[in-house]
Amino acid sequence: MKRRINIAVIGTGRMGSVHTRNLARQIPGANLVAVCDIRLEVAQAIADELGVKRVVRDFHDLLDDKSIEAILIATNTDTHSFIVRDVAAAGKHIFCEKPIALDLAEVDSALASVEKAGIKFQVGFNRRFDKSFQRVHDIVASGEIGRPCILHIIARDPEPPSVEYARTSGGMFLDMTIHDFDMARYQVGDIEEVYAMGNVLVAPEYKSIGDIDTNIVTLKFANGAMGVIDNSRQAVYGYDQRLEVFCSNGVAMADNEVENVAIKGAKDGYHSARLPYFFMNRYAPCYVEEVRQFIECVRDDKPVPATGKDGRAAVALGYAAWKSYRENRPVKLSEIK
Amino acid sequence: MKRRINIAVIGTGRMGSVHTRNLARQIPGANLVAVCDIRLEVAQAIADELGVKRVVRDFHDLLDDKSIEAILIATNTDTHSFIVRDVAAAGKHIFCEKPIALDLAEVDSALASVEKAGIKFQVGFNRRFDKSFQRVHDIVASGEIGRPCILHIIARDPEPPSVEYARTSGGMFLDMTIHDFDMARYQVGDIEEVYAMGNVLVAPEYKSIGDIDTNIVTLKFANGAMGVIDNSRQAVYGYDQRLEVFCSNGVAMADNEVENVAIKGAKDGYHSARLPYFFMNRYAPCYVEEVRQFIECVRDDKPVPATGKDGRAAVALGYAAWKSYRENRPVKLSEIK
Amino acid sequence: MKRRINIAVIGTGRMGSVHTRNLARQIPGANLVAVCDIRLEVAQAIADELGVKRVVRDFHDLLDDKSIEAILIATNTDTHSFIVRDVAAAGKHIFCEKPIALDLAEVDSALASVEKAGIKFQVGFNRRFDKSFQRVHDIVASGEIGRPCILHIIARDPEPPSVEYARTSGGMFLDMTIHDFDMARYQVGDIEEVYAMGNVLVAPEYKSIGDIDTNIVTLKFANGAMGVIDNSRQAVYGYDQRLEVFCSNGVAMADNEVENVAIKGAKDGYHSARLPYFFMNRYAPCYVEEVRQFIECVRDDKPVPATGKDGRAAVALGYAAWKSYRENRPVKLSEIK
Amino acid sequence: MKRRINIAVIGTGRMGSVHTRNLARQIPGANLVAVCDIRLEVAQAIADELGVKRVVRDFHDLLDDKSIEAILIATNTDTHSFIVRDVAAAGKHIFCEKPIALDLAEVDSALASVEKAGIKFQVGFNRRFDKSFQRVHDIVASGEIGRPCILHIIARDPEPPSVEYARTSGGMFLDMTIHDFDMARYQVGDIEEVYAMGNVLVAPEYKSIGDIDTNIVTLKFANGAMGVIDNSRQAVYGYDQRLEVFCSNGVAMADNEVENVAIKGAKDGYHSARLPYFFMNRYAPCYVEEVRQFIECVRDDKPVPATGKDGRAAVALGYAAWKSYRENRPVKLSEIK
Repeated sequence: MKRRINIAVIGTGRMGSVHTRNLARQIPGANLVAVCDIRLEVAQAIADELGVKRVVRDFHDLLDDKSIEAILIATNTDTHSFIVRDVAAAGKHIFCEKPIALDLAEVDSALASVEKAGIKFQVGFNRRFDKSFQRVHDIVASGEIGRPCILHIIARDPEPPSVEYARTSGGMFLDMTIHDFDMARYQVGDIEEVYAMGNVLVAPEYKSIGDIDTNIVTLKFANGAMGVIDNSRQAVYGYDQRLEVFCSNGVAMADNEVENVAIKGAKDGYHSARLPYFFMNRYAPCYVEEVRQFIECVRDDKPVPATGKDGRAAVALGYAAWKSYRENRPVKLSEIK
Repeated sequence: MKRRINIAVIGTGRMGSVHTRNLARQIPGANLVAVCDIRLEVAQAIADELGVKRVVRDFHDLLDDKSIEAILIATNTDTHSFIVRDVAAAGKHIFCEKPIALDLAEVDSALASVEKAGIKFQVGFNRRFDKSFQRVHDIVASGEIGRPCILHIIARDPEPPSVEYARTSGGMFLDMTIHDFDMARYQVGDIEEVYAMGNVLVAPEYKSIGDIDTNIVTLKFANGAMGVIDNSRQAVYGYDQRLEVFCSNGVAMADNEVENVAIKGAKDGYHSARLPYFFMNRYAPCYVEEVRQFIECVRDDKPVPATGKDGRAAVALGYAAWKSYRENRPVKLSEIK
Repeated sequence: MKRRINIAVIGTGRMGSVHTRNLARQIPGANLVAVCDIRLEVAQAIADELGVKRVVRDFHDLLDDKSIEAILIATNTDTHSFIVRDVAAAGKHIFCEKPIALDLAEVDSALASVEKAGIKFQVGFNRRFDKSFQRVHDIVASGEIGRPCILHIIARDPEPPSVEYARTSGGMFLDMTIHDFDMARYQVGDIEEVYAMGNVLVAPEYKSIGDIDTNIVTLKFANGAMGVIDNSRQAVYGYDQRLEVFCSNGVAMADNEVENVAIKGAKDGYHSARLPYFFMNRYAPCYVEEVRQFIECVRDDKPVPATGKDGRAAVALGYAAWKSYRENRPVKLSEIK
Repeated sequence: MKRRINIAVIGTGRMGSVHTRNLARQIPGANLVAVCDIRLEVAQAIADELGVKRVVRDFHDLLDDKSIEAILIATNTDTHSFIVRDVAAAGKHIFCEKPIALDLAEVDSALASVEKAGIKFQVGFNRRFDKSFQRVHDIVASGEIGRPCILHIIARDPEPPSVEYARTSGGMFLDMTIHDFDMARYQVGDIEEVYAMGNVLVAPEYKSIGDIDTNIVTLKFANGAMGVIDNSRQAVYGYDQRLEVFCSNGVAMADNEVENVAIKGAKDGYHSARLPYFFMNRYAPCYVEEVRQFIECVRDDKPVPATGKDGRAAVALGYAAWKSYRENRPVKLSEIK
């Protein structure tokens, strides 16, 4: 049997508790040795549930423990870069939830410390691990349907988050489209230029904070392909996640997963279920798979499947989209520093 | 350019007028030279519409015309065998609407005259010419998915015909299931035994005439495969026509054609169109194709794609189904004389 | 918070280990207090994994423990009735894997002891808990699409089990079709008569043990509806599980779940994934849901969703199917004692 | 019975012959009295086929005929505006194939003569008459799914036309995207600004004539909605025509029509047919319906469903797209004169 990797989780809130449970139950290669949260009682509760022995409030308490090889960071975004720097300095491998930071200088500082430490660093771009999106990627990457020409990503949330959430989220392009920027890079490659349109069409309260609720972003890829992302904060029929890579000799697509496969036929036609409503349900298997692969990469010293560079690129594209939207012109990624 | 075949149509009612228009407009290999109907004004009207020069009331007037090589018979079922005998005796090739007759002795008498005359004789089993059912047939016949194991046919009408119609139709197994018996033979081969169940579930008035409105018939094929047909007189969502041939190394299926491809997504899920409502719309291209191929067979002296033997087998299976239903036991086709 | 039910599992093999893990992790209303297996090391291993404190080899050791309210039985089929009798006598509620027994007298004896004890008794008909089949059931039961007329169940395994397995399984109708008999009863109601056809078409080695690998069974329901089940041991494209209830004013269907939603389009058409291959994956959520509901029924003293009567009926239908197949005639359920 | 409209066709080439046959056979409200083509033998052939009595080489010969109320113009694009002016001056209603002209000044001159004459003038935007696109339109226009937010149009040809054709076609935005501009306006309303990207990815020979073979165009509508069109000259899986209008309370979509509904399942998954290959097949019913409605509008003096203003807007949008592509910036429609 292969060596298990000792790992600790910092941040056991919504996303962190998902990772913590997955590490304990569904990732045999991982040995979950500690959990940490500044709300100690939150960490203690999940530790009790899962039989984790060590619980700390201050993540620094974990850094001297030589037996801990890897750390999963799932705290609030504004603490990521600070934690990454200290954990990297301690020489531990890192799985960090996205985004690394909302400020590019912070991202760069965190990545510099990672590079200096020579550790593994994976960013939590969970959608890369969806079986259908991976299948699309594999078809396209194999070359069997020619070169990529047009990428389409449709990503629509079921309902808008609160203004309070939106206010500190970095805005739609950095909070929501960022996933799609990464998916675009995963499927087709580096992006050189974006043009972004947006509007407030369903959540008028967003106007007061300068955010938008609907957008279309076009992409020019380095390889000559073109792409388009569309996003909405309100798809009443569910969490709409579709993808299409049109190529010179074919097309690869991923349609939506459905809530159930029942269909009713009646006088007025056929009726079928709406889409899964909650992103954590839709992508549940991805949260397991991304960490499983991270553990493998640590154990076998392989390159991680979603790097710090990927994390930086998605943030930079978010900034480029905001700039394009505000100036109503195409913006080159090279304009974003 | 290839030789055109001079043809006349006997019976220009509902089905006959479809064939007449198709012959005039969509089958370049045919030269429609005459139409005949005992209601002369009906024949005259369509002749005027299409520019057909010769119109007769009594089909015998056509039989001496040496220039007429082929006759399409689309009169009432109870006249088919009588007309077939005389047309065959005159040496003209025949395309005859289904069923040849409701009485097996009549069928045999008609087929004997056909054989004696040595003419081409095709029965109007239009569904054999559906592009999707043909594709299923071709996949299965190619052997690429192994040997046939299970056949499923679903065939449901949108609404029950009147009791008046049903009364002289031969009943559900001879009026409706007969199509499916032929499709079963077309897809999988000869049938040796049937077991039929039926009930009156949607059209209570059928009870008074001893007919049924819902049935399930199972089939045992000579090659060891098994099959099942289900029929209903009332599918409120449209004309439901599906087919599946499950084989030892795969499956070939034909799902329904849809009325349109629009889909609406809303809070309560997805909605799509019901099925086409009318069999003449659903199978319109088949009516052209079956006659086009008949014309070709006459011209090039090739075997027809739906023979007198096929026509007889479907009627015999209808009788076997009635016998099975009445006696509630499996009935061998060899019991039907 | 509601009271948790103390439960023990007897039999921690393939199916039992699934239930054991579900009870420990995914059913908050249950408190898993003990596991039992005649292979003590198997029980010990899963107890260690899940932190279960009590492990026994002989299930009788659990019966005196007043704190245990419920028992889940997942041993070999031939031990079910024996265990049920003793557990019932001890007054503990029972969740029993299907079938209760392969011998009807054994079933009756077990059910008599259940009745005498006045305990809850649920049979593990997992498919009743599939979200899509439940949705079909709810549509039909609501009456919104009229009365049931025709039921279709397609259930095909990906590949045949070994002859060794098949030999003691009760044969295809009792091992495989039994699920579909229960589903038929769940969707449409009591069955009065069956007619069964079968053949060996893909696994010639089954001939030596008198078993079959392909079948079609038709059903007559007490309410006048008719049904048909088809089964195969070898669907190379995956685990094929479909259902359709055609009603007088519409239809409710459950199509297959798919392995992924990626589609490739190329010169030769569109290609999509095959079906999930393994029944435990396909029905994984059902195994959780059936036990979750059992726990609720015990706690709140509600009727269980799959009763001993349901368990008996499915076995009796299996015998009726074998009798029908062997005698090639419709068999009334009342003929089976 | 309602009055039939006497109509003549000018230009009986590829598109004109379709209209001519439809007028003769499938549009009972029309009375086809004459055909005209500068290649007299072409006009004569189709007149013979359909029994049309009058055949002319010079369309002016038709203008003095008071009995002719309407003219269908299906000549080469560069002759449209010239013919429109003369036919309008003669007071006859006009159905004119798209585009009205490739030069906006020509378009304006033709439309001025139409306005002066006070005649009906319909442009041949056939896709507006597709039953599925109409269904989408009706759902959106009803308001039942809220306000339009995002429009998607995917329109891809099976294979690139020759360089010779492309050279005089106005280029991709005026030859191909023009249909989608009209569809966008039909579904969502007036467009104020476009941003166009394009590239040569599949037909390198297009570079020599300054044309492109792949494009994405984004749209800003006057009502605040946004849209995106993508086009390719080479979809090897068939003629890809999809549409989606995402709204604040739902979505309306039209997926592709398929060549047949057969599906094969095998070890490697499911396979289905590619798309119809030829636009004339895909949209055949639209060519009938658009002219049928034109005839009705003439007879009943109703507004036509695709106006001269619509025809001008689509051409102007094509110019705006070319300008945007060349200058790599969003272009307002108001910039195009």
